[in-house]
Amino acid sequence: MPIDLTLDESSRQQLLSDGTSGPLVRRSILPGGVRLLTETDRSVRSASIGLWLPVGSRDEKPQHAGSTHALEHLLFKGTLRRSALDIATAFDEIGGESNAVTAKEHTVYHGRVRSADLPLAVDVLTDMLTSSALAEESLETEREVILEELAMALDDPTDCGYEEFLAAVLGADTALGRPVGGTVETVSALSAADVRAHYAEHYRPQNLVVTAVGDLDHDELARMLEERLAAGGWDLDPAALPSPRRPEGSLAGVAGSAPTQVPAQLLERTLEQTHIYLGGPSISATSEDRHAMNVLMAILGGGMSSRLFQHIREERGLVYSVYSFSSAYRDAGLFGLYAACRPSRTEQVVELLGAEVEDMRDHGVTDEEMRRALGQITGGLALGLEDTSSRMGRLGSQELVQGRYASVDETVARIAAVTPQQVQELAARLAASFTARVDVGPAV
Amino acid sequence: MPIDLTLDESSRQQLLSDGTSGPLVRRSILPGGVRLLTETDRSVRSASIGLWLPVGSRDEKPQHAGSTHALEHLLFKGTLRRSALDIATAFDEIGGESNAVTAKEHTVYHGRVRSADLPLAVDVLTDMLTSSALAEESLETEREVILEELAMALDDPTDCGYEEFLAAVLGADTALGRPVGGTVETVSALSAADVRAHYAEHYRPQNLVVTAVGDLDHDELARMLEERLAAGGWDLDPAALPSPRRPEGSLAGVAGSAPTQVPAQLLERTLEQTHIYLGGPSISATSEDRHAMNVLMAILGGGMSSRLFQHIREERGLVYSVYSFSSAYRDAGLFGLYAACRPSRTEQVVELLGAEVEDMRDHGVTDEEMRRALGQITGGLALGLEDTSSRMGRLGSQELVQGRYASVDETVARIAAVTPQQVQELAARLAASFTARVDVGPAV
Repeated sequence: MPIDLTLDESSRQQLLSDGTSGPLVRRSILPGGVRLLTETDRSVRSASIGLWLPVGSRDEKPQHAGSTHALEHLLFKGTLRRSALDIATAFDEIGGESNAVTAKEHTVYHGRVRSADLPLAVDVLTDMLTSSALAEESLETEREVILEELAMALDDPTDCGYEEFLAAVLGADTALGRPVGGTVETVSALSAADVRAHYAEHYRPQNLVVTAVGDLDHDELARMLEERLAAGGWDLDPAALPSPRRPEGSLAGVAGSAPTQVPAQLLERTLEQTHIYLGGPSISATSEDRHAMNVLMAILGGGMSSRLFQHIREERGLVYSVYSFSSAYRDAGLFGLYAACRPSRTEQVVELLGAEVEDMRDHGVTDEEMRRALGQITGGLALGLEDTSSRMGRLGSQELVQGRYASVDETVARIAAVTPQQVQELAARLAASFTARVDVGPAV
Repeated sequence: MPIDLTLDESSRQQLLSDGTSGPLVRRSILPGGVRLLTETDRSVRSASIGLWLPVGSRDEKPQHAGSTHALEHLLFKGTLRRSALDIATAFDEIGGESNAVTAKEHTVYHGRVRSADLPLAVDVLTDMLTSSALAEESLETEREVILEELAMALDDPTDCGYEEFLAAVLGADTALGRPVGGTVETVSALSAADVRAHYAEHYRPQNLVVTAVGDLDHDELARMLEERLAAGGWDLDPAALPSPRRPEGSLAGVAGSAPTQVPAQLLERTLEQTHIYLGGPSISATSEDRHAMNVLMAILGGGMSSRLFQHIREERGLVYSVYSFSSAYRDAGLFGLYAACRPSRTEQVVELLGAEVEDMRDHGVTDEEMRRALGQITGGLALGLEDTSSRMGRLGSQELVQGRYASVDETVARIAAVTPQQVQELAARLAASFTARVDVGPAV
């Protein structure tokens, strides 16, 4: 059966995999333009479901920074027919899991329950999305909870180091570079009107993407969703199409420098260790180079056999934790190297971190490393298939970011097609792209 | 088929579940007295395996504190036929997961791999256990890594707060109360001879328990283990029996006091929040009251619908994170309440924490709360069945601690049999057992 892998914004029914080599994957556009993507897997007795909105902190005005995250909190505080305790009890009493995440480009409310409890999960999550009470007094209480959450993040050197690093690479004064949760100042100033305006503007059928994986029936879930969203008062026009996907911007060229030439920005803390974040801008989420980037990251700092782990921890004993990472957005991306060590070792560790990228630029990677990286990524994907939550998340990010469904087999084929030359060329670009270094620790 | 659920120290073959209502669970005593427990589950394509030794930090002499943990690290540094890179590569190149945990009463080396890779995982893990190189120079490098790990823990307010709380409840000068990883002083002083002595004394066939869950065959795994352990030089006497389980001690009576009367011990840190640990001694791991304790913990502080979460976070907005916990050992146990809040709120939060235990003592729990707790624990167990790692861990702790296999169905039945009176009586005991409070945060 020929299968169209593009997630078409106007095709109301798509079969993305026919289930012959893995689970059956289907996509429908429901009335109102709501998108539903499911993977049916009858080998489990549970289902994971996520309700996604393509709205995150980058969609906020600077003076309302933190409103997306505050709204996410407030959705748990009650609806027109449920109290906060009712919502909490609904998941707790069935032993289910539920939570929500606010990110820079999306917000997701998700749960994992036994399959028999899926209707209940749909009922509660759609109620929160369509009929949030957003009471003034709930905001006053929840504001204090959020300020505690911000205080906790400020006390966590990796949390605040990473946020500061993102701001340094992406631009502290840009919508994308600002911290997701806002600041003490903006959260203290948020009004219920700000949060309600955000809710009214973005929580609409055309924006909603639902992904679900596990022991479920696609058509039955579609019926449930339509029924519950309509009951919540959403206008579900049978002809409506989803909001068009946001255009990808182009990556602005940034003049970077060599790793050791980047001035360090210090977040001074009384700590035993200094936490180092070093890196710069990189490819966006839809870049053709993303598979080569995955291979590069696996070889450079992705596991116990990676270069960073072997050379800085195993051979020299300078660190306990060391790794590389990359993050990608619609029109921007970044790469980074992380290590934590006692303060006297900081400069030595920074030199070693940067030297690994330069060594990859100069000498490339071995066939043995390419083989190992492929095995690592492939095996990780295979083990990940046993976790319905991670598959639910994969469907969501493919719909929201890639605009294209890729099966695990296809992803493996693309990883396998990466050449050592591509990895080396990418390493050369990274080696010239260092723009930011954030240290969190004591002044030395 | 009648099934014997006791884990008999002399019965070489036991069928613990015949697979009619859930997976097939078998236990064998292999030559040398090695115990093997498996759950075969053909609905997955992977297997989780753990190699357990009933040896933890409580078995150390005070001057060698940290040697169990150091040994765990050194096992990854190479064997007679594998370098550290070989060990790291073995798991990375198949995309498997592997790690190890040192606790107060046991050490476990575990992995999760695709089923086809299980022989490789067995080969590597048994090689580490039987044939560790324990080279002098490896200890010197790894000592530095461990000191970084200790520094990281000192910088984490919840890590060091919890350790200090355990020491305060269990006795800072007792084997059980000491921190698992040792201190900077003891780790700096550890000699290769100390670590080798620990290895020679405890890493023996009679001590080894292997648990594995997933797509595997019990007899085939038994053959592999026997073959690889023998190849590693272990003497596998066909008649040997496992080391007898350690006797359970009895809980010493401790005179506790009311929650707000416990003097606070302050670990002074420059932080935005103060982290509070408040509690005292409680039941041991084999106590008949453990099911009532699970129910109590669910109602008191186990989820979003729990009393602590609803009253302290949802209604008052005083905290972001609040929960209750309990830990149990062979002959001791403890309970605790945790919250983090801005320092000015500390005394108010402590009062509220304690008041919830006293309220449960005075007024008991409702039938609605009992019903909800049962649903929460039952549903959580059902969802946990889909994770082979957590099932592997459950088999290990039943063998090492309980001496008895309990199916999920049996555990659910025991939870369901708990009465509100038992919960209230237990709450009364806890309310009179507060002995320790540790605050981590700024001086006020």
